[in-house]
Amino acid sequence: MREPDWLRIEQIIETALQEDIGSGDITTESLFPTDKKTKAVITAKESGVVAGLSVAERVFKKLDQNIVWHEKKRDGDRVEPQDILAEIEGLQKAILKGERVALNFLQRLSGIATLTSKFVNSVEGLPVKILDTRKTVPGLRILDKYAVRIGGGSNHRFGLFDGILIKENHIKLAGSITEAVRSVRERGPHLLKIEVETKNLEEVKEALSAGADIIMLDNMPIETIKEALEIIKGRALTEVSGGINLENVRKIAETGVDFISIGALTHSPPALDIALYMV
Amino acid sequence: MREPDWLRIEQIIETALQEDIGSGDITTESLFPTDKKTKAVITAKESGVVAGLSVAERVFKKLDQNIVWHEKKRDGDRVEPQDILAEIEGLQKAILKGERVALNFLQRLSGIATLTSKFVNSVEGLPVKILDTRKTVPGLRILDKYAVRIGGGSNHRFGLFDGILIKENHIKLAGSITEAVRSVRERGPHLLKIEVETKNLEEVKEALSAGADIIMLDNMPIETIKEALEIIKGRALTEVSGGINLENVRKIAETGVDFISIGALTHSPPALDIALYMV
Amino acid sequence: MREPDWLRIEQIIETALQEDIGSGDITTESLFPTDKKTKAVITAKESGVVAGLSVAERVFKKLDQNIVWHEKKRDGDRVEPQDILAEIEGLQKAILKGERVALNFLQRLSGIATLTSKFVNSVEGLPVKILDTRKTVPGLRILDKYAVRIGGGSNHRFGLFDGILIKENHIKLAGSITEAVRSVRERGPHLLKIEVETKNLEEVKEALSAGADIIMLDNMPIETIKEALEIIKGRALTEVSGGINLENVRKIAETGVDFISIGALTHSPPALDIALYMV
Amino acid sequence: MREPDWLRIEQIIETALQEDIGSGDITTESLFPTDKKTKAVITAKESGVVAGLSVAERVFKKLDQNIVWHEKKRDGDRVEPQDILAEIEGLQKAILKGERVALNFLQRLSGIATLTSKFVNSVEGLPVKILDTRKTVPGLRILDKYAVRIGGGSNHRFGLFDGILIKENHIKLAGSITEAVRSVRERGPHLLKIEVETKNLEEVKEALSAGADIIMLDNMPIETIKEALEIIKGRALTEVSGGINLENVRKIAETGVDFISIGALTHSPPALDIALYMV
Amino acid sequence: MREPDWLRIEQIIETALQEDIGSGDITTESLFPTDKKTKAVITAKESGVVAGLSVAERVFKKLDQNIVWHEKKRDGDRVEPQDILAEIEGLQKAILKGERVALNFLQRLSGIATLTSKFVNSVEGLPVKILDTRKTVPGLRILDKYAVRIGGGSNHRFGLFDGILIKENHIKLAGSITEAVRSVRERGPHLLKIEVETKNLEEVKEALSAGADIIMLDNMPIETIKEALEIIKGRALTEVSGGINLENVRKIAETGVDFISIGALTHSPPALDIALYMV
Amino acid sequence: MREPDWLRIEQIIETALQEDIGSGDITTESLFPTDKKTKAVITAKESGVVAGLSVAERVFKKLDQNIVWHEKKRDGDRVEPQDILAEIEGLQKAILKGERVALNFLQRLSGIATLTSKFVNSVEGLPVKILDTRKTVPGLRILDKYAVRIGGGSNHRFGLFDGILIKENHIKLAGSITEAVRSVRERGPHLLKIEVETKNLEEVKEALSAGADIIMLDNMPIETIKEALEIIKGRALTEVSGGINLENVRKIAETGVDFISIGALTHSPPALDIALYMV
Repeated sequence: MREPDWLRIEQIIETALQEDIGSGDITTESLFPTDKKTKAVITAKESGVVAGLSVAERVFKKLDQNIVWHEKKRDGDRVEPQDILAEIEGLQKAILKGERVALNFLQRLSGIATLTSKFVNSVEGLPVKILDTRKTVPGLRILDKYAVRIGGGSNHRFGLFDGILIKENHIKLAGSITEAVRSVRERGPHLLKIEVETKNLEEVKEALSAGADIIMLDNMPIETIKEALEIIKGRALTEVSGGINLENVRKIAETGVDFISIGALTHSPPALDIALYMV
Repeated sequence: MREPDWLRIEQIIETALQEDIGSGDITTESLFPTDKKTKAVITAKESGVVAGLSVAERVFKKLDQNIVWHEKKRDGDRVEPQDILAEIEGLQKAILKGERVALNFLQRLSGIATLTSKFVNSVEGLPVKILDTRKTVPGLRILDKYAVRIGGGSNHRFGLFDGILIKENHIKLAGSITEAVRSVRERGPHLLKIEVETKNLEEVKEALSAGADIIMLDNMPIETIKEALEIIKGRALTEVSGGINLENVRKIAETGVDFISIGALTHSPPALDIALYMV
Repeated sequence: MREPDWLRIEQIIETALQEDIGSGDITTESLFPTDKKTKAVITAKESGVVAGLSVAERVFKKLDQNIVWHEKKRDGDRVEPQDILAEIEGLQKAILKGERVALNFLQRLSGIATLTSKFVNSVEGLPVKILDTRKTVPGLRILDKYAVRIGGGSNHRFGLFDGILIKENHIKLAGSITEAVRSVRERGPHLLKIEVETKNLEEVKEALSAGADIIMLDNMPIETIKEALEIIKGRALTEVSGGINLENVRKIAETGVDFISIGALTHSPPALDIALYMV
Repeated sequence: MREPDWLRIEQIIETALQEDIGSGDITTESLFPTDKKTKAVITAKESGVVAGLSVAERVFKKLDQNIVWHEKKRDGDRVEPQDILAEIEGLQKAILKGERVALNFLQRLSGIATLTSKFVNSVEGLPVKILDTRKTVPGLRILDKYAVRIGGGSNHRFGLFDGILIKENHIKLAGSITEAVRSVRERGPHLLKIEVETKNLEEVKEALSAGADIIMLDNMPIETIKEALEIIKGRALTEVSGGINLENVRKIAETGVDFISIGALTHSPPALDIALYMV
Repeated sequence: MREPDWLRIEQIIETALQEDIGSGDITTESLFPTDKKTKAVITAKESGVVAGLSVAERVFKKLDQNIVWHEKKRDGDRVEPQDILAEIEGLQKAILKGERVALNFLQRLSGIATLTSKFVNSVEGLPVKILDTRKTVPGLRILDKYAVRIGGGSNHRFGLFDGILIKENHIKLAGSITEAVRSVRERGPHLLKIEVETKNLEEVKEALSAGADIIMLDNMPIETIKEALEIIKGRALTEVSGGINLENVRKIAETGVDFISIGALTHSPPALDIALYMV
Repeated sequence: MREPDWLRIEQIIETALQEDIGSGDITTESLFPTDKKTKAVITAKESGVVAGLSVAERVFKKLDQNIVWHEKKRDGDRVEPQDILAEIEGLQKAILKGERVALNFLQRLSGIATLTSKFVNSVEGLPVKILDTRKTVPGLRILDKYAVRIGGGSNHRFGLFDGILIKENHIKLAGSITEAVRSVRERGPHLLKIEVETKNLEEVKEALSAGADIIMLDNMPIETIKEALEIIKGRALTEVSGGINLENVRKIAETGVDFISIGALTHSPPALDIALYMV
């Protein structure tokens, strides 16, 4: 599984710590001026899929390089309330200062993994992949997309640089799907497939005859999706997008579409409740 | 109203653009190699409170410094589906490259403002302030907290550096609330009040007699909150925290508490649906 | 044509200026302490294809934002000795301080464009694309690859993130081409084609039957290339790589291969001689 | 020997890795999701002088801090085809991800060292120093100049900050060599010698009588160089610059000049062919 | 005691080293090209209070991670001429390159600690705290304020973000103290006390009745300070500021004021003379 | 006159503003939420030489790019109490937020310029130059050294990279002055003169016969300085260092030494008192 780039994550963690600690943790530093150690546990308070444990570990290591971190769960494990995710031992100061930042990472990433896993479980047994989108929180894309993978989903493109997707606005400015596909085939990178967003069956037909490798069926009712798949007949990969929820995802998957992409995985994931306690 | 620090926001925007554009927008650059201009609108697709328009404007200005941005709504305005938030005119390339990043900011910040405004509206007429927490997305705290203010909420501390809050873990390590308050009063900064988190009425009494300026009533049933307020009798400010939702917030507010803090405002805000269309 | 990302280029230029100017241009500052202006021209001293004029312009603008820059040639133009590329007017100090950095960019990028154009001209009329590689100077990849496009070439992948290329070392560790292609198809991103490097006809056959979208024929004699193309028969795109020079490139192109990739375009381009004179 | 500044080199390496790996090495991560180890060798494929081994080592250490690196050659060693430069043992992932960046550094720096050593060998036995110039690749100057030293050359100034060199453009703006030298002596730093670029014997005489410590003889025919040295008679150090190649360098050195500076060492060095193989 | 944030200090140290070493320590690198080790001591040459030893240690560790650092004194210790502060053992190169930067930190921070301790000693036995101000050197605030604490002083706010101080300029623009306090109470953060700067007894009275938590008595003669304290009668904390020196500080403290703030602690501290010798 | 590098100064200013403003200026933002403008003046409160006006201007421009800045004095001007240095007009918020940072720069730089000018005036009429040292505040060297020039002084080297100075510690490790000079001449950069620090007349003689270009007479009584100059007889430049103050500087200058270097110019300059008032 694609693992996130640690050079970039180190920067993200340092930014997060500086944002929270700033000129100092005035409560902790007033209370615990010496270098005493303590033990703590990180505990789930809701059911879900945990993600981000290595990130949380790195947060504490930045503040106390001798911290001892015992992982009791691994990223991707299902957890229940009261489950201990990790035991920590180290400087009181470091654990208190890093607590909120570590939990903020863990809660968001586990929230994404948990939501993704619900969609993935909903389509169990069907040959469809649940995809994320570029609707991630600015600055955290590599982590948000990592959490999607941990939840059992797959990643759509990481940015504008590693996937060609001709969207409605491109088509409007280019004049037509045919013209847009032609331009991209001529001038675009040869290592990438061409995906085209379509809004109706006319556009599906045009995309198909223009030679799209992947056709996105955007915001279509399920009946239209079925008709589109009839038309395409496997001559292009297909992706459904727009208006997907836990109620309708299995129905849509059963149409035989190859990919279902869901913005909510990363733009609206409820945080998973996780806490840290001194023990 | 406290406005966010633009030096820091410029960095956040540059990071977000580099994350998304990376080595180039291969779709757009293949399609539109020349410098043609276009017009576009940013439109709400759901009801809510808009926040982040200046951030979106800066996103596009980074990519085309001559972009023309007409704001039709202002941060804090209530919007309905189809409402135009802003009209843009500038290079096709710039608008297409900046679209997703601009919308990612707008959708998150408007989502926070919208959720906050629901809580604020629920307590209308009562002398309570709705507060956020430090449960923000790593790297975006100044923006997340800005959006809370736009939604009518107030900010709790920005980080560990600008507020003293003696929490459960501090108390455990310090031995007692009395001891913790004593240490902080002796060694902490004199410009800050001292807030103490309490879990039950014993702790409320101890915090009060230790001289806490603000007492947080954490995860208490509403009856206990009432008893606590009886005990405190205005000798300290009071903050209720934990388990707040739109169903119970007014009841809690009616107890006469000064502040209600809600982590969900920033850890689990559903994004507000907003789109950009070429016109 | 894909244009380089200016946010990144601004950083590259600032790094280059700080590297050269450091704590100050002691010669210029001793000589010209006042704010006098001057005119200068940038002139070619050899024949070639110019690239990087906008980068040179930005170098001077960083040092004097009021500099006047008249471009007499455009990126991609063929130039002869004595041709004026640009006329500049601005502070003496700024022009003297920026001269070497501006020329270092121009000479390298024009060197790459010139070398690329020689290969491109050698295969004129044939339906082959001349590609670059990832053998670029550390830190300058977006500029090196921009210069290749200016010289008429096309870009191979920009990094490890936007193209799948299963190379000899991957195959060795994966066990076989078949196994490697299978793994990548299963776990890799669906928006990218799969390219496989092959060293002999056995590998070509295996890559083809494994379903490679693109087959790289690495360091093969021309006869083997022909046999490989016979085997492939258009069922995959083909790329020849290794040992290409201006003597053999047309012969190789005439085999009908789709792409020829040449590391030397960016790892060993002779600089184009360009100078700046006060006038 | 002057060693490069590692704080700066760490930044250069991180930039290079982020440029190449970006959002992830999609080939390697799809193929090798686990943490298996492997062995590899770095091997010369041409004769030359190797430079940059510690830089390559640091590239891999950034990706796997437990990597084992056995250096078989040292910077400055002459290598022949098939010679092993280093043996590496570590995570498959780390070696595959770092390979191209490590080789890009090694090939460029060894290319510079090799070219430099050819010039140095050509003047063997003569009391002349071969110098580089500021015609380096933007962002890599400390490494380019390090490679020149490894090849047996010496460094001219590192930037505009650590050497005074009054060039043609300065002279033109200052009015005369005499005036320029006078200004610099009066206002320039007292710890630095003054070098003046001259184009003909008139200027040589003027520079000498103005009190230049070093006189650069720029683009002069060998006969003129000899006349200049006659005139100077050791009263200033002398540097020949412009139009130097492996054919004429010894002849020029035999004139008795103190320094010969060669831009091509760093603006046009052919990369040395070096490869990495799994073993 | 509040300790400085090491993530930020690492950046400060790297900036300082790059500023001093730049493209290389040409003296040391010419003299000691090999990796020999040496021993050295850091020695006080004047009496004072030492501060910054860990910063100095980190400076050397950045240049030689195996350096051995034996601290003979601790931050806050009083030192006399010839006292050894630390013994160092490590690479000759590293010690020579880091010497000046390490001493620059030590001399400034010890200078601040020494000056602070003089003021603190002058008020010994009195219940007053000596405070610093925001008049620190740009970029070094966390270190400057750390040194104040080491010298026995306390910190005023760290920046504009962690303390409310309504100053003369605010009052002028707001119209009156009353109006300013009202606005801040309504819109400002609830966790902070409100301090108001006053110039005369009228303003003291107005600040008091407006409800200021802390009243700064700015540049008042000692008689006026006494009158002000009579008026305030403990209903607000009091801070004297402006024109404080070692001659008058005890007299002012004896008035019973709570805090005395002194800009000179950080804007004009004489450096403490400290040297490094090879042994 | 050598002007500081603005690319670097922009970074210094941004760091200083972020350090002071952090998550926001809570006083100002609570008081002045709207975009009203105001006028202010920057005024001297002591006599001295002003330096840093352009830096102060840039501070305000960072916060309000439309600020109007009228300079009434120029860097290097002598100012008296009540003199207006600059008039400013712009957003209330921007002026209040930038005030302290702008004044911190102005007070330090003017303090350095003022102290330097006192030394320079003390040696008026004598052919000696007053030099600074590397004893500057970490991170501000280019500004500290700029202020020395504004005060009429000259700069010693900027760092370890642009001047050769063989100091006591080098000599100890190298074995002797003779050996040290020999090594540096052989391996050091040819564009730089060689300065040697000496403690007594033996060392002066050895430095002279080793061929030092500049001899530093460190911490010598004035009689020894005279003897040293007798010995040197103009065959090397001479620099006196150590123990210089306003009482003895003229006496030392009258010995005929070329340079006098004074660490206190930058390690212990009293800040010049400067204030900002709304008008």
